[in-house]
Amino acid sequence: MIEKMERIKRELMYRGTILDVYKDTMKFANGKTEEWDFVSHRMGAAAVLPVLPDGRILMVRQYRNALERETLEIPAGCRDSLTEDTKVSAARELEEETGYRSKKISYLLSLRTTVAFCDEFVDVYLAEELEAGEQHLDDSESIDVEAFELEELCQMVYAGKIQDSKTVAAIMAYSNKIK
Amino acid sequence: MIEKMERIKRELMYRGTILDVYKDTMKFANGKTEEWDFVSHRMGAAAVLPVLPDGRILMVRQYRNALERETLEIPAGCRDSLTEDTKVSAARELEEETGYRSKKISYLLSLRTTVAFCDEFVDVYLAEELEAGEQHLDDSESIDVEAFELEELCQMVYAGKIQDSKTVAAIMAYSNKIK
Repeated sequence: MIEKMERIKRELMYRGTILDVYKDTMKFANGKTEEWDFVSHRMGAAAVLPVLPDGRILMVRQYRNALERETLEIPAGCRDSLTEDTKVSAARELEEETGYRSKKISYLLSLRTTVAFCDEFVDVYLAEELEAGEQHLDDSESIDVEAFELEELCQMVYAGKIQDSKTVAAIMAYSNKIK
Repeated sequence: MIEKMERIKRELMYRGTILDVYKDTMKFANGKTEEWDFVSHRMGAAAVLPVLPDGRILMVRQYRNALERETLEIPAGCRDSLTEDTKVSAARELEEETGYRSKKISYLLSLRTTVAFCDEFVDVYLAEELEAGEQHLDDSESIDVEAFELEELCQMVYAGKIQDSKTVAAIMAYSNKIK
C-alpha cells in the first residue's frame, strides 16, 4: 500500500515563456516536510514518426540550446492552444518541419517526459502515406531533414547516439510493433 | 545546412532544490531575438530495467506530485554526486526501491528527457541475475513493487497506460532487442 504524501503549499517562483516554476512544500506519512521543485509546461506537445513509402524514417536535425549541440529527432512541437487535439498539432509540425503531409496519422503512444518534477506530456503519432511539399519554419527554427533506415536508427539508440526521449520511444515502439 | 542560433544572455531566475531555472536571450540568423526558458537539472539520473529469472520485469508504483497521480515506472533516481558513474546509481536505486541486487548490470540506452528546455539526462541499464532482499526507502518514498510479463507492459504502453518516458523507452528497447 502506497502511503499518500500531501502538498501543503505551492508557491509560484518564476513565470517563463513556455513554463511556470513552483516551490511545493510536501508533507510525508512520517510527518516530515520537504521543499520540491515543480515545473508546469502549460501547453503540452505532439510528435510524429514519419514513415516514407520505402520504409525509411524522416528525421530532423537541429541545434538545441538546452544541450548546446545538434540533435537528431522526430518532428515535434507544442500545441497551438490548450484545447488543440494533439493529432492536429502532430500533422502541423510534420508539415512545417519537413514539408511532408500525411494521409494516414495514427496514435502510437503518450509520454510524460520527466515525471519527478514536470507535468509536460507528448502524444506521439505515426504518419504514413506521405506526400512531399515545402518546409515552412518559424524565425527561430533552422532544421535539416534526413531519411534513415529503421534498423539504423535502432542501432544509433543502442549506441547512445540518439538520446531524445520522444525519439527513442517512438523508434523503439514502432520497430517493436512491426517486428 | 543548419543556421546557428546564438545565446547572447543567460540570467538565473530561480535556484531550486534539484534544478536551476534561467531566462536565455537567443539571437537568430535573421537578427531577431527571443527569450527562452532553460531548466538545468544539475545532477542527472539513472534508471534500471530489472529482469527476473523467469523473464518478468520488476516495476515500481508510486505517487507523483508533478502528475497528481500514481505511476508505474522502472526504478530510477538521481546520482549521489556530479561524478558518480550512473551504473553505480542504477544499482543503488534498484536495491533501495525493490530490495533486489543484480549480478549483471549492462548499458541499454541514454535519454535526454526534454530537449526543448532542459538538460536532464537519464542513463538506462538492464539488470539481470537478480537476488531478492530488503527494500530501504527515503523518508519521502513510498513504493510498491510489482512484476509484469514483458508483453503485458508493451501492450500497456500502446494503450497509453504507461507513459513515463524512461519506462516506455526501456520497455520498448528491451523488447525490440530480444525479439
